[in-house]
Amino acid sequence: MSQFPFTVLQIVGYKNSGKTSVMTSLIQALQKEGLRVGTVKHHGHGGEPDKVDHNTDSTQHFDAGAVVSGVEGGGVFQWNVRQNSWTLNSLLDLYRPLELDIVLVEGYKGDQYPKWVLLRDEKDHNLVKEVENMRGIVYNGTCPQESVPSIPWGEESTYIQVMIQQIKGDIDGT
Amino acid sequence: MSQFPFTVLQIVGYKNSGKTSVMTSLIQALQKEGLRVGTVKHHGHGGEPDKVDHNTDSTQHFDAGAVVSGVEGGGVFQWNVRQNSWTLNSLLDLYRPLELDIVLVEGYKGDQYPKWVLLRDEKDHNLVKEVENMRGIVYNGTCPQESVPSIPWGEESTYIQVMIQQIKGDIDGT
Repeated sequence: MSQFPFTVLQIVGYKNSGKTSVMTSLIQALQKEGLRVGTVKHHGHGGEPDKVDHNTDSTQHFDAGAVVSGVEGGGVFQWNVRQNSWTLNSLLDLYRPLELDIVLVEGYKGDQYPKWVLLRDEKDHNLVKEVENMRGIVYNGTCPQESVPSIPWGEESTYIQVMIQQIKGDIDGT
Repeated sequence: MSQFPFTVLQIVGYKNSGKTSVMTSLIQALQKEGLRVGTVKHHGHGGEPDKVDHNTDSTQHFDAGAVVSGVEGGGVFQWNVRQNSWTLNSLLDLYRPLELDIVLVEGYKGDQYPKWVLLRDEKDHNLVKEVENMRGIVYNGTCPQESVPSIPWGEESTYIQVMIQQIKGDIDGT
């Protein structure tokens, strides 16, 4: 189903709609299922991601003009790559060799992958009409849509469980 | 010559031998030549590389158990990947899709790629016998070896120039 050797699921919503919180719960739950999870997010504050102290060696390499610089230690490889513009697919391409089961994407709501939509309040409900490939909704107030699983914010264990069932179905189907 | 779609050159030396300083000058010079440079280094202080503030979203994904987490913004993609153990080759593998001309490696002196050896003082000279595939030496005091270009620390523009000539020769030869 995916053009990549892993399933992709997007978690989208307006700013401060709780995306990172849902992502974190979902990562933990998927990891407990024994799945190898990758994540991608768009930096929400404009500009480059916050960097570690400019005196660290990896940042010095990058600041000197390296296209990519990485530092490895303690089982973690941390790296920076620069490119004029990144599409979500160009980022996912970099994850190909990592033998992942699923990549969760926080944001990039204009992209085409299956997605859950987070609605903090009724003013957010128009987002449902803007995204394609919607697989579920987490909402407050009145239920905005019946065509996909729609679960209130208070019921975290329920929506995480439904997401996991969908993901496992996608993985089995690939 | 390299098994990768780019040339590899290592800069090795004992702790505080000036590796990062040489790396930085070399990156800047190679970039002026129009080459696409990648870098890898081993975290010198043990443990994981310094991370950005734990409240940043990318780190939250990683801490929740993602095998890989990345954040993109302003043309920079910053990511962390975990693996039980990394070899230099497994790191270089990740750089394959990036269309690099050369990857400069700081450290990993037990590896087999062409390398320049940095010697801060005469006590360091035994390092020359420990490494394979030596292509040049930067030294203080008496010259430890005549079989490869050996240049004193004071002559930075000279050793950078010799390194660049070697690198260009390698790139043309690949």
